[in-house]
Amino acid sequence: MSNASSPVSHGPQDGTHRRPYEAIQWRDDALWLLDQTSLPWRVDYRRITDGDSACEAIRALRVRGAPAIGIAAAYSIAAVSHALDPRTDLVTAFVEVEGTAAALAATRPTAVNLRWAIDRVRAAVTGATTSAEVAAITLATARTIHAEQASADIAMAAAGAALLGNEPSLVITHCNTGPLATGGGGTALGVIIEAQRRGLISEVLVDETRPRLQGARLTSWELKQHGVPHHVITDGAAAGLLGSRGVGAAFVGADRIAANGDTANKVGTFPLALACQYHGVPFYVVAPLSTFDLATADGVSIAVEERDPAEVLEAEGVRLAAPSASALNPAFDVTPAALVTAFITELGVLRPPFAATLRQALGARGATIPVESVHLT
Amino acid sequence: MSNASSPVSHGPQDGTHRRPYEAIQWRDDALWLLDQTSLPWRVDYRRITDGDSACEAIRALRVRGAPAIGIAAAYSIAAVSHALDPRTDLVTAFVEVEGTAAALAATRPTAVNLRWAIDRVRAAVTGATTSAEVAAITLATARTIHAEQASADIAMAAAGAALLGNEPSLVITHCNTGPLATGGGGTALGVIIEAQRRGLISEVLVDETRPRLQGARLTSWELKQHGVPHHVITDGAAAGLLGSRGVGAAFVGADRIAANGDTANKVGTFPLALACQYHGVPFYVVAPLSTFDLATADGVSIAVEERDPAEVLEAEGVRLAAPSASALNPAFDVTPAALVTAFITELGVLRPPFAATLRQALGARGATIPVESVHLT
Repeated sequence: MSNASSPVSHGPQDGTHRRPYEAIQWRDDALWLLDQTSLPWRVDYRRITDGDSACEAIRALRVRGAPAIGIAAAYSIAAVSHALDPRTDLVTAFVEVEGTAAALAATRPTAVNLRWAIDRVRAAVTGATTSAEVAAITLATARTIHAEQASADIAMAAAGAALLGNEPSLVITHCNTGPLATGGGGTALGVIIEAQRRGLISEVLVDETRPRLQGARLTSWELKQHGVPHHVITDGAAAGLLGSRGVGAAFVGADRIAANGDTANKVGTFPLALACQYHGVPFYVVAPLSTFDLATADGVSIAVEERDPAEVLEAEGVRLAAPSASALNPAFDVTPAALVTAFITELGVLRPPFAATLRQALGARGATIPVESVHLT
Repeated sequence: MSNASSPVSHGPQDGTHRRPYEAIQWRDDALWLLDQTSLPWRVDYRRITDGDSACEAIRALRVRGAPAIGIAAAYSIAAVSHALDPRTDLVTAFVEVEGTAAALAATRPTAVNLRWAIDRVRAAVTGATTSAEVAAITLATARTIHAEQASADIAMAAAGAALLGNEPSLVITHCNTGPLATGGGGTALGVIIEAQRRGLISEVLVDETRPRLQGARLTSWELKQHGVPHHVITDGAAAGLLGSRGVGAAFVGADRIAANGDTANKVGTFPLALACQYHGVPFYVVAPLSTFDLATADGVSIAVEERDPAEVLEAEGVRLAAPSASALNPAFDVTPAALVTAFITELGVLRPPFAATLRQALGARGATIPVESVHLT
């Protein structure tokens, strides 16, 4: 615990990885997070064994992506439980779990996966009779959530790739939705990487995704790791390029999808959807069922996180704007359901009318979702 | 000439300015350009007396904005003419003018004002009989173009402000279209500054305008000079904020407007127009008649400048993207005429059907445009 949250460099050559990198690892009774704020310059891992550093990592976007923050939160509760003295009594262990859960749930308001994963761990642990069982159950639940996500990613990648024609397509994506964002194979970028494996991608246009540049920094880095040809573009250039370059499809992720299909995702997604509609380009939202929130009726009801204006006024620590300038920094926007061509989920492709198809798919959620045999660290 | 193009700092307190700053000045037989790449950090002026530094200044965006680069090009030809030895023969003077004109015309392809201003100087000078007359005529023509722009800016500001309701409005703008962009009062930002004087603006949302951040750097700086409340936003945030904040109108400039009303402007304008259409927000293009190009039938025929990918991959000299990343960098996009609510020109507000109203207004261009009594340096 002495080096909790201190950065440690791991190369992709240390043999512990199935891919060149793993965003989320459980190792030596602790959570290890690939610090995504250091990418693409450095591959640094942070060891997380306490609630404070877990919350800091999520808030500071060291781990980000709706599915990944849910998984990281679940492992964080397990890490806190593992860090307890083995003689800790059950009540104290429960208090630790609940306190950590509450703090984690408050870190970011928009992505529903975060609360969903935390609540799942809280529910699972209620039957524990010792603090050791609390530790074991929280970890087992975190591993299950992680494995389900990896399995869902495989199913989504296959379902999404099947939507592309036989000729290689130019596709566009926003923000980062690759393995970094899910701890598995990725959502929207998982589709693109799978489609590339099948020879269906000519090139990817990557929105740089201001203000935090997840496209320019992370998606570009991941596509390079997977050998997928791509160009970074400014977010504002997408609308023009969709027309002039003949883009075949857009694939994006989601942070919360309301019952009517309205979709909260990284700010800049909505204008991309409008441009796709204008040009007749299919606009696909790739998200596991854990991102759907039938308790939220529509997009108006989704809380959009407002982040520090400094994210807009600076980049990589350099001031971009006039010294006197202030900024608004909504981290997400809500794409109206009418602009979504289809949702790609682990249960398949959901098409309009979304109110009906979403209810049907989410009703099936209780059914067993097959967890395929995927290697997780 | 020894210090041609060397930066010299001038404070707003040196008494030569009608505003706190002038983007384009003629002084001591030379053109002085406020170096907009140094803003908002430093107010540096560059002295231009030769074609090479004039071309460099335009290409590097030290002077930018469609009207401003036309005016700067005209003064540049005058500066080159003034720098000739007084005993220079007429043919040599013409060769200098034509050579400088050709080089300037090749610097940037999209803004029509550049070629329009250059051709006007070339036409005016044909009657010269001595090299001294070449110098005098080129300068007089540059001054006329500059004065006409300033006059047009006043007319556009009044026409645009009149479109706002009596209650203060939240408005949005893209890129920079203020005094810096025209050497006068500005186009779209001129409307906003005038509307603010009339108490019709509650606040301005300023698109940061990637990649060169003209909104964050220049528009924010200009609005501060004029005491107009504003927030900078990322370009991708506009679509969401238009809905959640109740924006009353969008005002943007233009680099070239085709005969059918299709409008080339700074990249990111097109998605803003799409978002305005979605939310029912009026989308106004503010441009002098010199920006209209009836010889270009529609937007497809407009050449869109592709600039250095480094502008996307870096900001303020700092690398933003993965080391391996490459980028596409179209400097402009074309907003289809159907998304434009109206054009605000010095002759008034032009509404659809644009093919007819533009032809009519441009037909009136030969008529005298009153040059109001404005102070020009």
